[in-house]
Amino acid sequence: MQKIVYTNEVAQAIKTFVNELAPASVHIITDTNVADAVLPKLRLDYPVITVPAGDDHKNLDSLSHIWSSLINQGATRKSLVINIGGGVVTDMGGFAAATFKRGVRFINVPTTLLSAVDAAVGGKTGINFEGLKNEIGAFAPAEAVVISTILFASLPKTELLSGYAEMLKHGLLSSAADYAALLDFDILDADLSRLLPLLERSVRVKERIVEEDPCEKGIRRALNLGHTAGHAFEALAMHKGRPMPHGYAVAFGILVEMIISHSLEAFPSAELYRYAAYLKDQGYGSPDVSCNDYQALLEYMRHDKKNDTPSQINFTLLSAPGQPLIDRTASADEILAAFDIFRDLI
Amino acid sequence: MQKIVYTNEVAQAIKTFVNELAPASVHIITDTNVADAVLPKLRLDYPVITVPAGDDHKNLDSLSHIWSSLINQGATRKSLVINIGGGVVTDMGGFAAATFKRGVRFINVPTTLLSAVDAAVGGKTGINFEGLKNEIGAFAPAEAVVISTILFASLPKTELLSGYAEMLKHGLLSSAADYAALLDFDILDADLSRLLPLLERSVRVKERIVEEDPCEKGIRRALNLGHTAGHAFEALAMHKGRPMPHGYAVAFGILVEMIISHSLEAFPSAELYRYAAYLKDQGYGSPDVSCNDYQALLEYMRHDKKNDTPSQINFTLLSAPGQPLIDRTASADEILAAFDIFRDLI
Repeated sequence: MQKIVYTNEVAQAIKTFVNELAPASVHIITDTNVADAVLPKLRLDYPVITVPAGDDHKNLDSLSHIWSSLINQGATRKSLVINIGGGVVTDMGGFAAATFKRGVRFINVPTTLLSAVDAAVGGKTGINFEGLKNEIGAFAPAEAVVISTILFASLPKTELLSGYAEMLKHGLLSSAADYAALLDFDILDADLSRLLPLLERSVRVKERIVEEDPCEKGIRRALNLGHTAGHAFEALAMHKGRPMPHGYAVAFGILVEMIISHSLEAFPSAELYRYAAYLKDQGYGSPDVSCNDYQALLEYMRHDKKNDTPSQINFTLLSAPGQPLIDRTASADEILAAFDIFRDLI
Repeated sequence: MQKIVYTNEVAQAIKTFVNELAPASVHIITDTNVADAVLPKLRLDYPVITVPAGDDHKNLDSLSHIWSSLINQGATRKSLVINIGGGVVTDMGGFAAATFKRGVRFINVPTTLLSAVDAAVGGKTGINFEGLKNEIGAFAPAEAVVISTILFASLPKTELLSGYAEMLKHGLLSSAADYAALLDFDILDADLSRLLPLLERSVRVKERIVEEDPCEKGIRRALNLGHTAGHAFEALAMHKGRPMPHGYAVAFGILVEMIISHSLEAFPSAELYRYAAYLKDQGYGSPDVSCNDYQALLEYMRHDKKNDTPSQINFTLLSAPGQPLIDRTASADEILAAFDIFRDLI
């Protein structure tokens, strides 16, 4: 299993892992933003491979650039890759490492709350391909993940809210108490050091699920809560040329899926209103979706890789906070009705 | 572990596996040669993805073409890929399957002796990248391998000799008796049905080693016998524009490494002469190598991905038939001396 350390001494933690793993060489993979804003502070003395920042660049070109650079820097099968960045960097750097010479070791150092709580942990790696998110990839766990809230201090509000949505998801999967604790916390108004215990708890929810089902044959699908509708919102926003932060899409997707859960699985309406109110209070805003977009949203959902057959849309639903139900489906009519209610609520 | 069936009813065996695995859809990956010569005989009714034949096309372009075609054919995570072809097809098709939506199942149907005895079994998948062989890939076992000597009936002599070299290697790793049985057999003059028991035995040697060490941390490296020098011969021949069949390169590589084994590990000289005579009798010919090529050969060996540090060249050596020694090294002088003796013997 992946080692996860929570620390404020990031560079020291990295060096400790490098010493433990005794690699033939070390190679940092990062993006242009992190190379400017974060790397100088860490003062690490390893060769760096930089990819352009942004999900648009999580593609075969950037992947090839990483592979080429590893060759040019003399990486061998005993080398170590350190991915320092958000989800794009940890997903793509992890996939590059998992496939370079059929696999070299890597560690992840997430620089965003979203990647700390989601992408960096759990072994999913990959790139987008032909406009499809994470269409190409592999299950490959990092040797270790170094998580520090210090790296989040300079994140804009949108990044914090984006990451917090995945924490809300973990709370909803875990227990009513975990979920309630998250609704009581104000990520925008709190000392980030107070976030650490909540974050640790949140990552542990994911770890526990991933340990039980690393390759997503069953219970790991619970982690897709909010992601069926969420990916559709994200794809639509991208298509309209106004990309939406992943976590916002998940936050909205959870609400849609709570509404479907209410219709099909008796998820309590009070919880539904409470969640919608929390999103409003925190300032998640609302997605640019009208009824003219419904068919496009359905199409995105039909092409989701979570579907085992192209005709059925796969959801994780909830009968209550802490009670996920995997491998559920809903009809087009049920989904469209949920979109209507969603637009009223948000 | 992979299921391996030895049968002359290829299409029937494929259909049986398809029924057992109950995939959402089935997709055949093959190359232009096999699509013409073999597929019509099998009369399988599944969509086909064809890549250009030849190791030159075992690259990112062909891989992208396979991924795109899987998308266009509507493959899901529950689909099944069937790779029908030689090592290029099973390596690249296996890698495409292993990375499509983070992994779909695949079965291999080798159409050459070389791929039956080597590439199709054991879970190594990959593509060439920037001129480096199998530089990008993954360990991903096929669900099943269907092996039939019927498919080899129309193979040219060079293909049979090429595959037989890997069988000789397995014999050398396994035991003096297995090895002797192979030297007693004449692949060019025999009824191919008599090959089947030897082939089964040979594949089992590989299976046993791979089971013990699927990701090549230790004993699996024994399978690299002949491949350090062999890859260098292969790369040099490619560079000169006169590609050499992989198995020929391995056959020659084994002889070079026997010579090094004789110098460093007391491998018996009688065995060395016996092996060289067998290659001569069977008509493997000799590689186009002069002393002007020595530095180039050394360079190729230094860049071999089997090396853990760039400065040391990693070999599997032998103290006797059936007695492999992994993770050995030899100096440049020792290797060059072996090339001299090799050129005298061959």
